[in-house]
Formats: sequence, C-alpha cells, structure tokens
Amino acid sequence: MKMIEKFKIIDCDIHNALGSTSDLLPYLAEPWKSRVARAGLGLLYSGYYSPVGVGRKDAVPPGGGAEGSDPGFVARQLMDPYNVEFGILTGNLFSVSVGHDPDYAAALASAYNDFMIEHWLGADSRYRGSLLVSFLDPLLAAKEIDRLGRHPGIVQVVMSSATRMPLGQRYYHPIYEAAARNGLPVAIHPGAEGAGQSNPPSAAGYPTWYLEWHTNLSQNFMAQLTSIVCEGVFEKFPGLKFVFIEGGVAWLPHLMWRLDKNYTALRAQVPWLKKLPSAYIREHCYFTTQPIEEPKNMNHLKAIFEMIDAEHILMYSSDYPHWDFDAPDQILRWLTPEARGRIFHSNAKQLYNL
Amino acid sequence: MKMIEKFKIIDCDIHNALGSTSDLLPYLAEPWKSRVARAGLGLLYSGYYSPVGVGRKDAVPPGGGAEGSDPGFVARQLMDPYNVEFGILTGNLFSVSVGHDPDYAAALASAYNDFMIEHWLGADSRYRGSLLVSFLDPLLAAKEIDRLGRHPGIVQVVMSSATRMPLGQRYYHPIYEAAARNGLPVAIHPGAEGAGQSNPPSAAGYPTWYLEWHTNLSQNFMAQLTSIVCEGVFEKFPGLKFVFIEGGVAWLPHLMWRLDKNYTALRAQVPWLKKLPSAYIREHCYFTTQPIEEPKNMNHLKAIFEMIDAEHILMYSSDYPHWDFDAPDQILRWLTPEARGRIFHSNAKQLYNL
Repeated sequence: MKMIEKFKIIDCDIHNALGSTSDLLPYLAEPWKSRVARAGLGLLYSGYYSPVGVGRKDAVPPGGGAEGSDPGFVARQLMDPYNVEFGILTGNLFSVSVGHDPDYAAALASAYNDFMIEHWLGADSRYRGSLLVSFLDPLLAAKEIDRLGRHPGIVQVVMSSATRMPLGQRYYHPIYEAAARNGLPVAIHPGAEGAGQSNPPSAAGYPTWYLEWHTNLSQNFMAQLTSIVCEGVFEKFPGLKFVFIEGGVAWLPHLMWRLDKNYTALRAQVPWLKKLPSAYIREHCYFTTQPIEEPKNMNHLKAIFEMIDAEHILMYSSDYPHWDFDAPDQILRWLTPEARGRIFHSNAKQLYNL
Repeated sequence: MKMIEKFKIIDCDIHNALGSTSDLLPYLAEPWKSRVARAGLGLLYSGYYSPVGVGRKDAVPPGGGAEGSDPGFVARQLMDPYNVEFGILTGNLFSVSVGHDPDYAAALASAYNDFMIEHWLGADSRYRGSLLVSFLDPLLAAKEIDRLGRHPGIVQVVMSSATRMPLGQRYYHPIYEAAARNGLPVAIHPGAEGAGQSNPPSAAGYPTWYLEWHTNLSQNFMAQLTSIVCEGVFEKFPGLKFVFIEGGVAWLPHLMWRLDKNYTALRAQVPWLKKLPSAYIREHCYFTTQPIEEPKNMNHLKAIFEMIDAEHILMYSSDYPHWDFDAPDQILRWLTPEARGRIFHSNAKQLYNL
C-alpha cells in the first residue's frame, strides 16, 4: 500500500476490538468465565441507533470479524499508509463502567487489559495501550492501575465519559491518585452515554435520535471538564494530565470564558483553586481532534484554534475504524508546519513519553 | 437619576418578582387559594447555593420586599437611567414546570399572568409581559396561551429550560402550536435545572457547587436547541420563533458546526428537515446577551460574533435585578453603531412588534 503521509504521525484514538467474546475467556477467573461463556459480556448499550453503522465497512478484516479486531490488518490499513509511528489503542469496552456489578466490571477490564497487552502490544511495536478501568469501584480501578501501570507499552488509563456523577468528584480520586503514582494520564472516551446507570445523555434528558445523542456528547465533556477543574483535581494531583478523546474542541473558548467569569465571582466555593480555571485546562488537559468541527469558512476554525492555543493542547486522532474516521491527510490541511508537527506528532510524543 | 444611555434600548430579560406570595391569592380559585395561603407556593429549588446571593443588594425597593418587586422602583433604577424604551418582563416562577401537579402548576401560572398584567403592565407603559406557562400539561399551557396571548402587552410565551425530556419532542408541540396561532415567540429561561422532576443539571450528573451549576446551564441550552431543530419544530410551525434567554452565546459556532456535520452524515433520521440545522437556527432563533462571555482578548468575542452573525440573532438583556446584571453601558462597547442598534434595540423591536 502506498504511503500517503510524508511525516510521521501519532494517532491517539484507535479502537481495537475483540475478535469475539471468547477472546477474554482465558483471562477470566470463575465465576466470570462461566458467565461470559454462557451469556456474553452483557455490556449495556444506550439504545441510539446509527443509520450509517458504527464501523467502516472497509475495515472488516480479510479473515472476517469485527472492524479493528485484527492487529495486522489495522497496521496495514491505517499505520503503514499514514506513516503512524505510534498508535494509541483505546479499545471499545468503556461501558464496563455503566453496568451494575463492580467486581464483574473490574474482572472484564482486567481480562481486556491482559488480552490487549498480549495480542496487540505483542503484535506490532508501534501499538501503545490504554489501561481500561471501571469506575464502579475506584479502589479496584486503582489496584488495576498499580498492577499494569508500569508496563512499558501502557501509556494512559482510559475510562468511560458516561457517568452517574461528574468525574471531578471525590469518589473518583483513588483512580487519579493511582494514575499520578504510575505517571499515567487519564483519558476519557464517550460511547456509553445514556446506557445503564449513567446519567441521561444530555442536561435536557434523553434525545430521540443518534444524530442528537452524538451531537450532545461534547456537552458531557464540558460538564466533566468543569467538574474536574472545580473539584481541585489538578491541585490535589499536580502532575496529573487528562486527555479528552472524541468530544470536539470548538466549545473550549466558550467554556473557558464562562468558567473564568463565574470563578471570578464565585471563587469562594472553590478556595483550593489558585488560578483561573482556564489556566488548569491549558496546563493539564489535552483534547484529541476527531471529530473535528468543519465550518464552511475554515478561517473560523483557525480563529478558534488561536483562542485555545490549539498547537499546545490538541493531539491528532483518527477514530479508526469508526464511521466518522478523520484521515490525517484530509483534515486541518491549513495548519502551519510547526502546528501540524505538534498536533499530529510531538504533543502526544511528549505527553506519552514515546 | 441621570440618563446614562444616549440611545433607546430594549431590555429582553427583566425579572419582575412577587412582593409576597399573597399577591397571587386574589387570582387563585380553590383549592389552590387555600393551599397557597397555608403553605406558600411550594416551588421546587435545585439546592445550589450562590455565595453572592441571587439579587443585587441595591435592587431592594425603598419600601422593602424582594428585589424587582416594585414596578415604579424598577422603572427608576433601570428603565429611566438606561433609556429603556421597552422592558420585557420574564418573571421568576419558571419552576412551576418542574413540580408534580399539572393543575396546580397551571393555576399558579395563570394567577401570575393575571397579576403581572394588572400590576406591571398597568403600572408603566414601557413594560411588556411574557406569558408564563407550565409544560406539565401542554394542553393546559395551550389554553392559557389562547386565553391571554392576544393581550396587547403580551409579547411572548416563557417557560422553564429545565426539563425531564428535551423541548423539541412531540409532547410539547401543543404549546408551540398555540404560540404560533397567537403570533408569539416562545422563550426559555434557566433557573430550575436540577430541581423537582427536571433532569440532573448536566449530562454528567449533579455537580457540587452553584459555580458549576451556573456554568453548565449553557449545555442544557445546547441540548434543547439541538432537539428543537432536529424534531422539526420549525418545519411544523414555520412562523415560530424561539428566544434563548440567559444561556450564553459563544457555544453557538461549535454547536452549529457539529450539528451540521452530523446532519450531513445522519440526515436519514430527520427526513423532515429541508436545510442545514444551522439555517433553522439563524432564521428562527434569538439569543439574549446576558451573561455575555468576556474573554481577556475582546477580539476573540468579536470573532465569535462574526461566526454567528450576532448582529441578526442577539438581543440585549440585563437580567435585572440579579447578581450578574450586565449594564448596557458596560458590555459590548466595541460593537459598530449599526450592530449595537440591532442588538440593543431593533432586533427585539422587530421580533416583538414593538
């Protein structure tokens, strides 16, 4: 296959999938092994149906199976032609966190992590893994981070952005403490919004269609980011970084301005903050590009990029193999070479110590 | 008092308050009259406490009582010095819609409307009223709109933005049908988010502080706007206009781009739409200014205003007498005279037929 990209890039959101549920069986103990063998994973689903499907039709591996389930084919279809130096695997089992049984969720996450390390990190030296945790029991999540967080192929913790309560709250802090202890950023990823015991997927309630559900995902990110900053997570864990995957970016100016303005008037409520909320966002938070907003007038997006200092907080992601895949040679072609270098490569290289 | 504003303005969000609960008693029939006399209005409250209060301390009328409860004092403190040609009263009883009994909510809304027409519209010819409805029973709301919607001092319908389900859904359509029949825009206003039977006030769940709660309000507006457009409200009621009061504006570029992009891929789900979602927003929706975002670099807000064609969709509002009041001589001083004329005056004049 012809190489399309001239310069090396890092793709921060590749969805490796299981070939089949039984892939996890060797990594599960009883009683979970029998449960999965009998009933499958039992992950909960929001009920919103995409008329264009979720996976790219051309991403089905030659040998069959789910899109993104064959490490070699992903390498050939995505990594080789686009000159991907490192591909950050994010998996697609985030919804372990919106089920009900914390022990089962933790067992599934551990089994997935073991499987991913063996079958993906072992298959191609360009892959890097995100350690999946369930926040149904933050202490078990912390244990999992301590168990595998020092593995050389693991570069971050990943968890669902769909929650019952906002991610800044103290309930979650053992996870952040463990991530900080292991030198790992924490990433959040949408998909389970409105499923299981997560909150309805918008502040207005349950929308009707996937079109709205998908549009609303960025609002959840706004609420999560607000909570993480206001609760003082970055004062409590000064080295911690957060990665907001697949939630859009053009809402950031509004959020930073509104939050800074409200903070100025209401900072008595959050006395642990020592600077403006936007300063924490700029220093501790990264945002992946896909799905990048695409106004008709690209100067408008350029203006937004300037407002948020995009060059220092964005990281390229393809979302392979999903329907709304952003090919690296198709998006943001107007970036300066320097900005492109940072967003498509060096920001991630630095954050993940690659 | 000295006149501060040279040019006439229209203030699209003045919160007239009751002097006391008993103001409504003459307008209530039994059994509601006895209930209110015995137990007050019983309106539900979200539980988020503002350390700076809600009302401006200097807005307490000389004779005492709630801020904004004296029509003459509001005229002297706000309308005279700022050269307010028309002041749109929005009240502060939006939370009738998040209680539980639809008959009681409708009775309270009707009593408030009768009181407001008599004591406010009767007190100063510059006041214009928003007809409060409860959406706990959309058919009763439609009846109320038919009862008073043709009153010459009534310029719009107003209701809570805090909902159990998004405002575009069919459940609410009798309200929009009645508003369209009476030639009135529909306005929504925050305040009850997270109270009573409304959804948690963010897509992430209940935040901890008022600082976050207030920041998150704009996310609810994003979800409501998405729903109203996608459900085809503006195709079903082509003359209908919506006014989004007090929800911010700088999120609009993101929302329009994301929604247009998703619509392009997923429009099979909403075949009744005949144009891009952003086109409906530009043609049918107005946004009030307060609380206006205030970046350090005002050129950034200027750029946002250009992206959303602010000159044609924004209308000035003060939010008097609330803590985050935006004085007309203090905000948006960089607007061109023409843009200022539209945003501070003629957009509202035209929308409300003043």
